[in-house]
Amino acid sequence: MTPAPDTDNPRVDRTRTAILEATLDELADVGYGAMTIESVARRAGASKATIYRHWDGKLDLFADAVSTLKAMPRYVESDDPYESIIAFVEAIADHIANGRFAACVPALIEASVSDPAVHEFHVRSSAERQAYGASVLDAARDAGHLAADIDTFAMTERLIAPIFFRRMMAAEPFPVDDVRPLVDAVLGPHWRR
Amino acid sequence: MTPAPDTDNPRVDRTRTAILEATLDELADVGYGAMTIESVARRAGASKATIYRHWDGKLDLFADAVSTLKAMPRYVESDDPYESIIAFVEAIADHIANGRFAACVPALIEASVSDPAVHEFHVRSSAERQAYGASVLDAARDAGHLAADIDTFAMTERLIAPIFFRRMMAAEPFPVDDVRPLVDAVLGPHWRR
Repeated sequence: MTPAPDTDNPRVDRTRTAILEATLDELADVGYGAMTIESVARRAGASKATIYRHWDGKLDLFADAVSTLKAMPRYVESDDPYESIIAFVEAIADHIANGRFAACVPALIEASVSDPAVHEFHVRSSAERQAYGASVLDAARDAGHLAADIDTFAMTERLIAPIFFRRMMAAEPFPVDDVRPLVDAVLGPHWRR
Repeated sequence: MTPAPDTDNPRVDRTRTAILEATLDELADVGYGAMTIESVARRAGASKATIYRHWDGKLDLFADAVSTLKAMPRYVESDDPYESIIAFVEAIADHIANGRFAACVPALIEASVSDPAVHEFHVRSSAERQAYGASVLDAARDAGHLAADIDTFAMTERLIAPIFFRRMMAAEPFPVDDVRPLVDAVLGPHWRR
């Protein structure tokens, strides 16, 4: 990403923010393939020249805009490690059902097919999200609630994959209320009280 | 889909097949948004007029082409119900890692965002695939290997979602060799010998 030369200027900051938000809205509506610098400029009420002053081109703008999305859902840790895991998976379900990140996932998947740089960015941020979930399971394992040799990264995938599956392949997003039955069925049998 | 008026003519059949294959190749390469009747015609070595003689337009052509994909993976049933389930999930993993269907899934997801008819088609065929898997689990439940009240449709999602997740969100497809550990971890604890 090109560093803005003059981020101390609040007017420039507002313009940059408006352009990044227009980029995400455009991605959600038409996807990466159909998005153009021109369509983003029109949406943001800015000129193409302004966009090119701040970003090297479409991929640079895309990467900067997507990096502003909260890729890491916030969850409230509990004293009970099992409840912390439930809270993490519920946060993923909420994150994938609502908001800009959810709306941009199909654009990320689409752009990954044709653009190696987008692909690299997409799979890396997905792996970081999964590793974050695995760290919640690691804490439970270290407290003796899971077998010492459990693959927490793979187990995290088994807990979050149905949520992404529903978003991509089904008519309705995964209901947050269905997270507990999911965790109970998949993780529950491996849990040691 | 428009029925071809003269499918008895082998030359017309060959032309239709070439156009449908060009459509799938185009979808895999550029996605639904960027695909045009013109780009398909060029790829198939046919005229736009020929395409419009057989299909009403882009969506009709798309739906017809995608319907020729094997949406149902073939698997070899076993005398052992657990092995039948392993075989089904392995077939899904193979189906999603290789071939035209796998290559077209991102295009289906992308097109589903902007086109309600594609969305309807996409989620229906996905649900049919999942119901087919659930029927394999139903047989095991009826033989007493699973609790009578198990939700086999939800359990099927838990078995196949990691495979789709890996295809959409990770750098590498789900290895067929990792299917057994997945089924052992997710279904194994619910299995009654």
